[in-house]
Amino acid sequence: MQDIRSMSGTTFEADAENVMREITSVLDPSKHKGQAGKIAVIGGCREYTGAPYFAAISALKIGADLSHVFCTKDAAPVIKSYSPELIVHPILEESYNISGLEDEERRCISSKILAEVDKWMERFDCLVVGPGLGRDPYLLECVSEIMKHARQSNVPIVIDGDGLFLVTNSIALVSGYPLAVLTPNVNEYKRLVQKVLNCEVNDRDAPELLQSLAKQIGGVTILQKGKSDLISDGEIAKSVSIYGSPRRCGGQGDILSGSVAVFLSWARAKGKATTSQMNPTVLGCIAGSALLRKAASLAFKDKKRSTLTTDIIECLGRSLEDICPAC
Amino acid sequence: MQDIRSMSGTTFEADAENVMREITSVLDPSKHKGQAGKIAVIGGCREYTGAPYFAAISALKIGADLSHVFCTKDAAPVIKSYSPELIVHPILEESYNISGLEDEERRCISSKILAEVDKWMERFDCLVVGPGLGRDPYLLECVSEIMKHARQSNVPIVIDGDGLFLVTNSIALVSGYPLAVLTPNVNEYKRLVQKVLNCEVNDRDAPELLQSLAKQIGGVTILQKGKSDLISDGEIAKSVSIYGSPRRCGGQGDILSGSVAVFLSWARAKGKATTSQMNPTVLGCIAGSALLRKAASLAFKDKKRSTLTTDIIECLGRSLEDICPAC
Repeated sequence: MQDIRSMSGTTFEADAENVMREITSVLDPSKHKGQAGKIAVIGGCREYTGAPYFAAISALKIGADLSHVFCTKDAAPVIKSYSPELIVHPILEESYNISGLEDEERRCISSKILAEVDKWMERFDCLVVGPGLGRDPYLLECVSEIMKHARQSNVPIVIDGDGLFLVTNSIALVSGYPLAVLTPNVNEYKRLVQKVLNCEVNDRDAPELLQSLAKQIGGVTILQKGKSDLISDGEIAKSVSIYGSPRRCGGQGDILSGSVAVFLSWARAKGKATTSQMNPTVLGCIAGSALLRKAASLAFKDKKRSTLTTDIIECLGRSLEDICPAC
Repeated sequence: MQDIRSMSGTTFEADAENVMREITSVLDPSKHKGQAGKIAVIGGCREYTGAPYFAAISALKIGADLSHVFCTKDAAPVIKSYSPELIVHPILEESYNISGLEDEERRCISSKILAEVDKWMERFDCLVVGPGLGRDPYLLECVSEIMKHARQSNVPIVIDGDGLFLVTNSIALVSGYPLAVLTPNVNEYKRLVQKVLNCEVNDRDAPELLQSLAKQIGGVTILQKGKSDLISDGEIAKSVSIYGSPRRCGGQGDILSGSVAVFLSWARAKGKATTSQMNPTVLGCIAGSALLRKAASLAFKDKKRSTLTTDIIECLGRSLEDICPAC
């Protein structure tokens, strides 16, 4: 296979700090609320409430103006209680809650959920689908419809966690949509490769395989998480290898998905103004990956083995400030 | 009775700091999420929500990657709201909530609860049974079944609080299971001794009695909490006498059970690699006891009479770092 360096025509490791400086939204007193980003997380169910909170609060801590969460009725009061900064919509339903209903009534509830999300859709700069979503079939069916509507409205979608479970089984949801970003971990990536390319993952040709996968799904962007993060949209492949932390506490992937959502929104807003001319989804992934790593490293310096995801979130602001100061 | 020093062939007081250094999981960037420990706490009911939180969050603060809580539906939103870092499953039921149901329906609910826990069981490195469990008969029956399944899957079980009430009345649940750890306080210990050995506790031959008790229950490990903690698996007896704090605020036992769960998981993972060749459950108890004492002492220095369990939890990281630095 062709060498990745010659394929991309640039060095493989991304110049992540420069990317961050280039795309980060300029703070300007003349701007109004919303212009620095409006993000929505679709996730949070009876079982999981921490993950959507981590994604949504990370978006705000990086500099987004508004962060919404669309979750189940059970999850909403808990997610609201984590922070008054989030706007939490208790609208999704799980099967157990509608088990006695006729098909017609279930469809009616689905339509209402979809109408509720649609009211907001055009205002969002990016959706994050998956943190704490769970795998309830009825809920996932609703979320599939939400994704179709987002796509019709050209709203970018970052997909993680159980969102990847959904997409791996229904690849058409993202296939050919260049504003979709998938952020699989080792196991999620294996399943994607098996499903789409019908082969096994091997470490030797990692960037080439990733690039083939992204191309095969019609130019979506994939951020493959690992010791180094690898990013490809099918045209180009980049790595981010900045040292983060050896802590592997759950929830760091949620920070990443929220961060990528904000950065890719900023990169899209800059449009052709970026000198690198790279795909904004790739720029968003590079910046999100690098920021998480910086913040994790900073948190670990202080908290060591005790480092938890909330500690890393507290370091997002300082990490970004170190690289591109607000004023 | 034989002197304990000659029985064990080593000094009686454990070299706790060395044990901690020996078993604590090495942080390594190539590891992935879960490899530093996945713990589950079974506890939390309408009445108690703090205890399972203390146990589960302590596990994370020491360095576990994932910490779950399986509790009643009432307790879940509250425990979730304490921290987004925990994964809380609202699945257990108490009698008052199913009082109108037929036996058949009650059995059906039990089966569902058990199936829900079973989905996760093999992923856990250790269960902690008891913090905030309560004594509802229906709930305890379900928990007995969960313990049987854990045992079939060779998952270690640390038993504290109302879990000890359950086990003291149904000793067969742990009898002959070398991966069971009981952590009784003075009164819980008295009841255990009366039930199993049919005698009274006396302070003179404390280690010998403890050793007999552990042997009689078929080689479970017992951590007898007191001014000094005594630990025995029936073969060996060790004490941990590091000075802690004179504060006796509720909840410290929950920190201990969560800590022992993490350390014994680490000790098991190291297996024969530990030079001491001691039973990993004993090593886990020694490390957990010593860490709690160090953290309590640190918290007390700062907060004096005001010291609460949350203050001690905040000192777990620094206490571990002082003894075995992360890098």
